[in-house]
Amino acid sequence: MGMDPPMGSRDSQVRIMEKTVANAEKYFGRFCSLMASYTRNVAKLRDKSDLLVRQLTDYANTESPELRNTMKSFAEELAKVQDYRQAEIERLDMKVVEPLKLYSIRLKQMRAELKRFNNTRSNEIKQLEKLARLRQEAPPHQHSSPQAEFSVHRAAADTSRTSKRLQETFDCFRREKLKDVQRIFSDFVAVEMIFHAKALEVYSDAFRSLHSYGSGKDLEGLSRPPG
Amino acid sequence: MGMDPPMGSRDSQVRIMEKTVANAEKYFGRFCSLMASYTRNVAKLRDKSDLLVRQLTDYANTESPELRNTMKSFAEELAKVQDYRQAEIERLDMKVVEPLKLYSIRLKQMRAELKRFNNTRSNEIKQLEKLARLRQEAPPHQHSSPQAEFSVHRAAADTSRTSKRLQETFDCFRREKLKDVQRIFSDFVAVEMIFHAKALEVYSDAFRSLHSYGSGKDLEGLSRPPG
Repeated sequence: MGMDPPMGSRDSQVRIMEKTVANAEKYFGRFCSLMASYTRNVAKLRDKSDLLVRQLTDYANTESPELRNTMKSFAEELAKVQDYRQAEIERLDMKVVEPLKLYSIRLKQMRAELKRFNNTRSNEIKQLEKLARLRQEAPPHQHSSPQAEFSVHRAAADTSRTSKRLQETFDCFRREKLKDVQRIFSDFVAVEMIFHAKALEVYSDAFRSLHSYGSGKDLEGLSRPPG
Repeated sequence: MGMDPPMGSRDSQVRIMEKTVANAEKYFGRFCSLMASYTRNVAKLRDKSDLLVRQLTDYANTESPELRNTMKSFAEELAKVQDYRQAEIERLDMKVVEPLKLYSIRLKQMRAELKRFNNTRSNEIKQLEKLARLRQEAPPHQHSSPQAEFSVHRAAADTSRTSKRLQETFDCFRREKLKDVQRIFSDFVAVEMIFHAKALEVYSDAFRSLHSYGSGKDLEGLSRPPG
């Protein structure tokens, strides 16, 4: 009947596609919910740190000038880290969680394409079965129903066209999937790197400011009676 | 009666001490519970990341060799970050949360010292009142009870001794408090710095490995039909 690839090979290719799409749905669904949950946990860490900043500031206000200044500047550095954490949270949402959500929409589209192909293929099989039945029922040497033969040809052409589109969409999906995996995870890594670099910078300042307090001047003040 | 500082001044000093200890109890209690909560949140972040590592590894095993290798090495780098996070959690517990807990024990000891002084002081006042009563009740020109005078002197000596010890303990407590604040918070900063520095290092490797995959060789493989 002049079909492009042999019927069985095409059906098994479609089964491979279905398996690939189902596998991607499974793992990308998990990546998405884990990344969303990771981001929520970072937000909780920011909340706890914000509370700590507030308590440190309140405490500083109850202390003598030197400890007050040191505690206040420490609280300010800690607050800066939280600003960077807030930026981290927003970037994780935008560059990791959202793209993973969009990805599940792409997977749904891919599923719809597969379903469309399966429907066309079922119709072709139905038409073929009908033609076979008509040929059996017809008297010998009589030409089988031209109408049924036409339906079979039309269904086969449909299947061929849908199959071609499916193959194209799937190739595109496979190509995009690899690019997406790479983009999403390197965006995750980049967002985390920026945060860690900034936090390291701010904590270095905080460390210096806590230690500048430790030396000479401030400890001397301690041995004097309270003012 | 030869008491070292005037009575009223000493009482007001003790009130200042009580306020200082109560204030420290309030804030250090909060720092302790917030730091414990911060540490638990970091542990949750590690748990989520561990789940992500497992899912990435499982996913890698369902993929073609090139994506598999890239995902596996990414999962390995992410696992390394979690090892450093685990070290961070242990250090936060040991160097921040535990010292803050020990601090509340020191504050309880300080409170006990204050209570001891207040009891001694109450006894002195009681003896003084008793002596005053005896003097009023005694006939004019008669020497007041030597027994009661002795009790007053003994109680005053007790108060003086307890007061001196209280002052020493409090000075020590004040000195220790400042050192403790400084030590605990710079330990916190140091623990965080180590983690951020290590995470930055590992993520740099992860970024490179994700990007080495993006260039030439691997993308070429993509345009070939599935094997």
